[in-house]
Amino acid sequence: MARVAFRLRVRPERIAEYEEAHRKVWPELLQLLKEVGISEYSIFRSGTDLFFYMHVDDFERAWSRIDASPVNRRWQAQMAPLFEPMPDPAPGERFPMMREVFYLE
Amino acid sequence: MARVAFRLRVRPERIAEYEEAHRKVWPELLQLLKEVGISEYSIFRSGTDLFFYMHVDDFERAWSRIDASPVNRRWQAQMAPLFEPMPDPAPGERFPMMREVFYLE
Repeated sequence: MARVAFRLRVRPERIAEYEEAHRKVWPELLQLLKEVGISEYSIFRSGTDLFFYMHVDDFERAWSRIDASPVNRRWQAQMAPLFEPMPDPAPGERFPMMREVFYLE
Repeated sequence: MARVAFRLRVRPERIAEYEEAHRKVWPELLQLLKEVGISEYSIFRSGTDLFFYMHVDDFERAWSRIDASPVNRRWQAQMAPLFEPMPDPAPGERFPMMREVFYLE
């Protein structure tokens, strides 16, 4: 199991909409996230900065399955317009990843 | 148990020093963190942005005990010069906190 973190930014005028959507994430999307091995998945916000944290068995495999699923395509079609453009991820990275520099169990 | 997240910024010219210190955090500081009820404590970095995530029984009580401890005073004396100044925390907040907008167990 890996601890994984990455960041995104929400457009300031879409914050309320983003939060409302995340109070009622579709049950079939939650089920998909569990099925691909994600747990302890939190999204934190401060201003327009979003921080994503999760436990996952295999990040690349999990997100490949998520990306390929129709339910996630429908979800992303609603979410994509809410995000600010971010700098391109590093080569081979799916998101702007953060690196863990300390961990205490 | 609460999931808590906050953010700080490290001075760009002190990143290597910050990471080196966090590869060898003093055992007595780690013991203190456990004693006050902190677990699953990660620090993530991207550029100069640091993201702190932890599980804690009672955040205010835990950090009051940490602040009062001589070992943490010694640690902070070494760490404080490495951080960039941040905007003042919100009233009643010890750090610039982030708010959880989504959680999946």
